[in-house]
Amino acid sequence: MSPVTARPAGRPRDPELDRAILAAAEQLLREAGYAGMSLESVAAAAGTTVPAVRRRFHGKAGVAVAVIDSLRIETMPAESGPPRSRALALLRNFRANLLRGNSMAVVGTLLAEEHRHPELLAAFRHRLVEPRRAALRQVLAEGLSSGEPPDSADPDLLATMLIGSLYARYVATSDLPDDWAERALQQVWPDAPQSAAH
Amino acid sequence: MSPVTARPAGRPRDPELDRAILAAAEQLLREAGYAGMSLESVAAAAGTTVPAVRRRFHGKAGVAVAVIDSLRIETMPAESGPPRSRALALLRNFRANLLRGNSMAVVGTLLAEEHRHPELLAAFRHRLVEPRRAALRQVLAEGLSSGEPPDSADPDLLATMLIGSLYARYVATSDLPDDWAERALQQVWPDAPQSAAH
Repeated sequence: MSPVTARPAGRPRDPELDRAILAAAEQLLREAGYAGMSLESVAAAAGTTVPAVRRRFHGKAGVAVAVIDSLRIETMPAESGPPRSRALALLRNFRANLLRGNSMAVVGTLLAEEHRHPELLAAFRHRLVEPRRAALRQVLAEGLSSGEPPDSADPDLLATMLIGSLYARYVATSDLPDDWAERALQQVWPDAPQSAAH
Repeated sequence: MSPVTARPAGRPRDPELDRAILAAAEQLLREAGYAGMSLESVAAAAGTTVPAVRRRFHGKAGVAVAVIDSLRIETMPAESGPPRSRALALLRNFRANLLRGNSMAVVGTLLAEEHRHPELLAAFRHRLVEPRRAALRQVLAEGLSSGEPPDSADPDLLATMLIGSLYARYVATSDLPDDWAERALQQVWPDAPQSAAH
């Protein structure tokens, strides 16, 4: 039990300890959900005390938001190559992230907590959802501007459908086939055969 | 506290009380999630005792599965009319159900509990996810057999994309626009103009 004197207003003084706390909290969030993640369990797994966790992260919701901001994810692919290939790379990256350590359980717990702790879903959107949607929308719009996919396509809607196909597949089966990204993209943005160059 | 004598192995003896327990548990599942739903809170809200709840539903997971089996949802639309109109009706029905009382929080808590209580997600799939997917797949396949949507379409994939577009939109914004079903369907199955009859 560390003394509760002279609180430095959350200023991190030991980056190693901060990292240990976030790693422990991330694992608990993935395995036990927000409701099952206690400050006691985070402190114990990080080898520290509850007051030390509180001092750094201002309570349980603060720890969870910090975890979301620091999520160890597969970074999004570089922006090079033809738009369709980049769309495919973004969707493959999304699939890889969903398959990492209970990611759908994390999405689930943020949705389950939305009305009590909207800051969790907000942090997740800011850190992951919005950048991915924006990147996918952009490559779809670039494709459109050069004549693909079909000109009735709405980049925002198509991005939502492509991303959503992975959520809905998981909800239906807990299984995301290897070639899902290719097959989903093919439905709305068919790969032009090489021989059809013009 | 009722006496724990002569357990009738879960046989319901008072349908009114069963309904009161399920209604209380449904509300708690929607508002507090599975982790926040205690047998004590269910019993109190239903005006009964924990042993009475246990006797009927075999513990907390049993209550939750019974809630999912009995979810008060908007029933799926009747199977009549042209395939495209039926697809639209199914998607509008799905949207209406997602917008009812914290439904995305319920989906979230089932995903969050998947590894601890897979029977919850399994019950949800059996009761809601699979019938909806099957119905949508069928109308897409019927449309295909009469030349719409485009012949490269894969009914299972398109059904997953259309359903998923609502999940992904919610994850991104918590908002499901009125005309979302129309706009999403239009992307993959354009409405033939009236004048194009042949």
